Amino acid sequence: MSFNTFGKIFRFTTWGESHGPAIGCVVDGCPPNISLSQKDIQKDMNRRRPGKSKFTSQRKESDNVEILSGVFQGKTTGTPISMIIYNQDARSRDYETIKNKFRPGHADYTYLMKYGIRDYRGGGRQSARETASRVAAGAIAKIVLKKLIGKKFNIIGGVIQLGLLGCNKNNWNDKEIKKNPFFCPDKKSVKLWKKYLLSVRKAGSSCGAIIELRASGIPLGLGAPIYSKLDADIANALMSINAVKGVNIGAGMEASLLTGEENSDEIRNLGGKAKFKSNKAGGILGGISSGQDIITSFAVKPTSSILSERETIDRKGKNTKISVKGRHDPCVGIRAVPIGEAMLSCVLLDHYLLNRAQCS
Amino acid sequence: MSFNTFGKIFRFTTWGESHGPAIGCVVDGCPPNISLSQKDIQKDMNRRRPGKSKFTSQRKESDNVEILSGVFQGKTTGTPISMIIYNQDARSRDYETIKNKFRPGHADYTYLMKYGIRDYRGGGRQSARETASRVAAGAIAKIVLKKLIGKKFNIIGGVIQLGLLGCNKNNWNDKEIKKNPFFCPDKKSVKLWKKYLLSVRKAGSSCGAIIELRASGIPLGLGAPIYSKLDADIANALMSINAVKGVNIGAGMEASLLTGEENSDEIRNLGGKAKFKSNKAGGILGGISSGQDIITSFAVKPTSSILSERETIDRKGKNTKISVKGRHDPCVGIRAVPIGEAMLSCVLLDHYLLNRAQCS
Amino acid sequence: MSFNTFGKIFRFTTWGESHGPAIGCVVDGCPPNISLSQKDIQKDMNRRRPGKSKFTSQRKESDNVEILSGVFQGKTTGTPISMIIYNQDARSRDYETIKNKFRPGHADYTYLMKYGIRDYRGGGRQSARETASRVAAGAIAKIVLKKLIGKKFNIIGGVIQLGLLGCNKNNWNDKEIKKNPFFCPDKKSVKLWKKYLLSVRKAGSSCGAIIELRASGIPLGLGAPIYSKLDADIANALMSINAVKGVNIGAGMEASLLTGEENSDEIRNLGGKAKFKSNKAGGILGGISSGQDIITSFAVKPTSSILSERETIDRKGKNTKISVKGRHDPCVGIRAVPIGEAMLSCVLLDHYLLNRAQCS
Amino acid sequence: MSFNTFGKIFRFTTWGESHGPAIGCVVDGCPPNISLSQKDIQKDMNRRRPGKSKFTSQRKESDNVEILSGVFQGKTTGTPISMIIYNQDARSRDYETIKNKFRPGHADYTYLMKYGIRDYRGGGRQSARETASRVAAGAIAKIVLKKLIGKKFNIIGGVIQLGLLGCNKNNWNDKEIKKNPFFCPDKKSVKLWKKYLLSVRKAGSSCGAIIELRASGIPLGLGAPIYSKLDADIANALMSINAVKGVNIGAGMEASLLTGEENSDEIRNLGGKAKFKSNKAGGILGGISSGQDIITSFAVKPTSSILSERETIDRKGKNTKISVKGRHDPCVGIRAVPIGEAMLSCVLLDHYLLNRAQCS
Repeated sequence: MSFNTFGKIFRFTTWGESHGPAIGCVVDGCPPNISLSQKDIQKDMNRRRPGKSKFTSQRKESDNVEILSGVFQGKTTGTPISMIIYNQDARSRDYETIKNKFRPGHADYTYLMKYGIRDYRGGGRQSARETASRVAAGAIAKIVLKKLIGKKFNIIGGVIQLGLLGCNKNNWNDKEIKKNPFFCPDKKSVKLWKKYLLSVRKAGSSCGAIIELRASGIPLGLGAPIYSKLDADIANALMSINAVKGVNIGAGMEASLLTGEENSDEIRNLGGKAKFKSNKAGGILGGISSGQDIITSFAVKPTSSILSERETIDRKGKNTKISVKGRHDPCVGIRAVPIGEAMLSCVLLDHYLLNRAQCS
Repeated sequence: MSFNTFGKIFRFTTWGESHGPAIGCVVDGCPPNISLSQKDIQKDMNRRRPGKSKFTSQRKESDNVEILSGVFQGKTTGTPISMIIYNQDARSRDYETIKNKFRPGHADYTYLMKYGIRDYRGGGRQSARETASRVAAGAIAKIVLKKLIGKKFNIIGGVIQLGLLGCNKNNWNDKEIKKNPFFCPDKKSVKLWKKYLLSVRKAGSSCGAIIELRASGIPLGLGAPIYSKLDADIANALMSINAVKGVNIGAGMEASLLTGEENSDEIRNLGGKAKFKSNKAGGILGGISSGQDIITSFAVKPTSSILSERETIDRKGKNTKISVKGRHDPCVGIRAVPIGEAMLSCVLLDHYLLNRAQCS
Repeated sequence: MSFNTFGKIFRFTTWGESHGPAIGCVVDGCPPNISLSQKDIQKDMNRRRPGKSKFTSQRKESDNVEILSGVFQGKTTGTPISMIIYNQDARSRDYETIKNKFRPGHADYTYLMKYGIRDYRGGGRQSARETASRVAAGAIAKIVLKKLIGKKFNIIGGVIQLGLLGCNKNNWNDKEIKKNPFFCPDKKSVKLWKKYLLSVRKAGSSCGAIIELRASGIPLGLGAPIYSKLDADIANALMSINAVKGVNIGAGMEASLLTGEENSDEIRNLGGKAKFKSNKAGGILGGISSGQDIITSFAVKPTSSILSERETIDRKGKNTKISVKGRHDPCVGIRAVPIGEAMLSCVLLDHYLLNRAQCS
Repeated sequence: MSFNTFGKIFRFTTWGESHGPAIGCVVDGCPPNISLSQKDIQKDMNRRRPGKSKFTSQRKESDNVEILSGVFQGKTTGTPISMIIYNQDARSRDYETIKNKFRPGHADYTYLMKYGIRDYRGGGRQSARETASRVAAGAIAKIVLKKLIGKKFNIIGGVIQLGLLGCNKNNWNDKEIKKNPFFCPDKKSVKLWKKYLLSVRKAGSSCGAIIELRASGIPLGLGAPIYSKLDADIANALMSINAVKGVNIGAGMEASLLTGEENSDEIRNLGGKAKFKSNKAGGILGGISSGQDIITSFAVKPTSSILSERETIDRKGKNTKISVKGRHDPCVGIRAVPIGEAMLSCVLLDHYLLNRAQCS
């Protein structure tokens, strides 16, 4: 039971509203004696924070994270790591319009109906601002995984589809992802994407995206049947991110179009090691990692915060219209890349520790 | 933490191997005073069991479920409901070939590497036979939901894509689903599907499928942010089913192709009630049910148990080949329909009870 | 959340009513590749089962346990171990009197009021018969601990007070415990206890008991602050046993009477190892095992099933009287010894695995 | 699994070290729409904080709690309530002596051995300072219980034994508890207790205590068999408090001395309601509240922080001696009263919500 806590052994609890004084995160179950500094975490925070390019929200947040506990003389102690991020650019006036009207496609309506009360300022708890806490937790998970697994561990995400535009995955280049504002792994797609997204932005509209995550160096044996399968926990983790509507593992939805011959990854002995001839499975068989790269992708819907006027009702049930004028991302999917990486890192570390418990 | 337990308040634990003496399920957290009989559960069991048509495995299992506890004088008592299903047609000789060879696309390799031991007979614990227990638990969940919500509650699943063949969802007909051996909701597709699947079967091959689930009459307010979102829990539940590789909520992966205008479901006041003009969200906003129908779909890969010879290695790491001759489903996706319904029912009941705790 | 499940990683779920067809237990999270046979478990079952002497209930139950899953070719596989124990000597007619009257001191009243329904036969789910399942789970935990820790691991419980009669703990002898029907560790007390308990039985009355548990060979480091402290989890485990009303760790309640000087266990270096000069702490400091013996004790109330007539009300609220004539233990505390050992074993194994996850 | 989280539905997570910048608490699962202000919480904080009399530690902490989230316009919103308490009087120099020596009776040794690292300043995470966070969470639980149950709900704790001195429980007076510095319910004992504790303090020694908690107005039906019994959860909650070594429910350990006749609480119909003639059970039967007052007590050991020199070893294993000169409580049991109340309140609210889920 965990409304605001994620994980089994490596667990984090997030708190905070978009326009409250601060948001934060308590990470529990982190192994002791791991070197950890604020800087390590901040690096990931900066990848997610808004206002960095004209393709993301203009809200100015430094997303400066402070560590309040759990680290002593530069090392984790095994006690909870509490982190706090103060909200800086919270302009509540922007949100007077949404105080009484439900934005279609947002959770305004369901939150108010469920709880009978909600902090409507900037979406309150339902705002994607909460994901900053996830990135902080994920940064710790990555550092721990790197320490436990070694240098071969790597995790990277990229946007492989921006609205209607795909990219060529054969051109995937980890370094390219860090160079363009779209986390796009294919250099050749960047120019067209820029043009496209500017036009979407100018139109006051928004578009969706698909993000692919790749984790390599993952040991065999992570994941536990039947109800702690690695793929099921990844699906849960990614679907919990705001605006995500679909999750694929390996071939994903397209596995339905393959034959048994095409889909099963044949195995060969290569220099004494088992090697798979393909990776339709996405590195997971029967819920357990196979030692292949973990490949997963997820779809982010276009944000419903758009300039176009939309039909809706107000708190009293009256028919009305709404046009959202705040500071928004034309494609929220872009900033979902570091969030996806963070969630996947947390799931992998969690199962790494679980496997150590059961099978070491 | 729950390797073999699913759920938060309404929880079930499954046990058993494909060729052991029996499999079973303990359902915990079921509300008291609900009328429940073996017959009610058996009805759902029969929808999943193999050997009913030439399109599914020829293993003969009556899948007769016995209730061992938790029901007194025809009613639930609030104590755990233990159910047992004896294995009948377990022919272990069929599985001598897989004792020492890893079937590509199956979990043979990962199970053995993780645990250092495995019951290889019929796939042991990794066999889809485990899903019979889920259907038993789901049958109880459905009965309880019907009692708590009333007659307007309905849950139904259908195969909307069989291998390369789709169907016309505009022809969706709940009754049709019960009439054909494919759980296909579109009468017009059945004939072609028959022909197609027979050819797949004759070729000793297999194909995938996509299943769509629809739940109606669901009250607003089920699901709890941030890490017990209804959609994230559904994704977890469906991805935990054997061979599932992708999960969509509402528009799903295709939401990435829509504009903000197309994707946000506008709201109108209709006779004093909020009505959505579309349902791209699949009935869930911010992780909370909106009162619309819950729509979710998932992709099942083609089974890797095929007659075609495939390259693999044996337990000693030697290169070899394998051809699986046992009794298998040409499309495991078909029998996934009642399993998907069962898992969705359990998630919905779980959140119904959780919501009662927090917001009643 | 776990109504009928105990534990964190090593978990067991029990089910079944006193007069239903069977009771049982599903053990989850057991490490793989541990030799395990039905016989190993049965040995512990026999220590708990009734009808062995005139000092316990005359209900005849062989308490024969069957393993239905999770063990393959004599070894655990890491999958759930399902065990079933059929009820044999269930004479429901004995319980017609309690169908409509609430036995004072029993849970008849609270069960019916809470659930609105209950299986009254033999106390149904509230019967101590459920503890047979715990002993089965505990037997597995002991075997695993012995495999993981080695021969130095030992766990033993003894009755140190029988009603008004104590014993001399300085005479504690593990072997003596197995020889007398009271699990009494002090040979000199046995004769008097016999006489005393026979008189209690003849009078149709009952008496309480205090049981002490001792676990040796326990590695330092089990238990995790703050809310998974080893002592807090032991208190939870023991207080969950039927009729238990108090739990002590080390000096326990009497620690309140000591001075700081008397209570703190001084430490010395003995041959390169830390040795404590006393063990007031019961082997646990700050919720973490110190490497000393774990010492804990618990009080069992006298059963309320007595011949003496007692005032009560019936289901309709009418004043009435009741005298319980079924087959009962004059001192239920005696049979609580193997149950206490079982619960302690499960807690220790659980924390052993947890520690491996976090600190290996 | 929850190292630093307590509870099932109403959950709180604490973080922070004694001499870090701050400590805090995240409360999750609080029902929405409950009036809550900082003041309400501060009132309870003040009852626990040190430095109020010469009978407690002289550390000066205002224990000022700040609410960072989860409350909007004076009401809870159903989202996590994050609270922070800055450490003010953290004099790390006081703790240089314990940097390298293990204080007997403290968790210095086990923390370092388990984790290989620890924040030794003031005991770090193992310090009772953590309990301030519990009191904050408990204050919220009390307010919610009062709202849900009504005015008849009351919870109060008192010290019934101070070291070797008891008090007369027949003189129990709720109001008296608030008047004396010992939380003593018996006015007649206060004078002697003062004299006694001053002498303990002067001697540089310390003494233990027994605290009794009484909760009235508790509805029947809280608690769920078998492994979420109300009494077992209370035992867990109280034993998790620093320095607690024993927990009683109702008659507790002394139940072992009673006969079945003495111990079973007879029931009568009084004006249409079931009334018990006594309360040996402490208000709990079969793990479920009976509607009677919940009575529980727990023993706190004398703190091991004493002036007397004690034998111990240092980090290198060398024999040495230690005398603890910091600011300490001569009887830590006194300040355990509000902590015990807090923990009991949290358990009761948790089960209130759970019962609503299962049986409403």
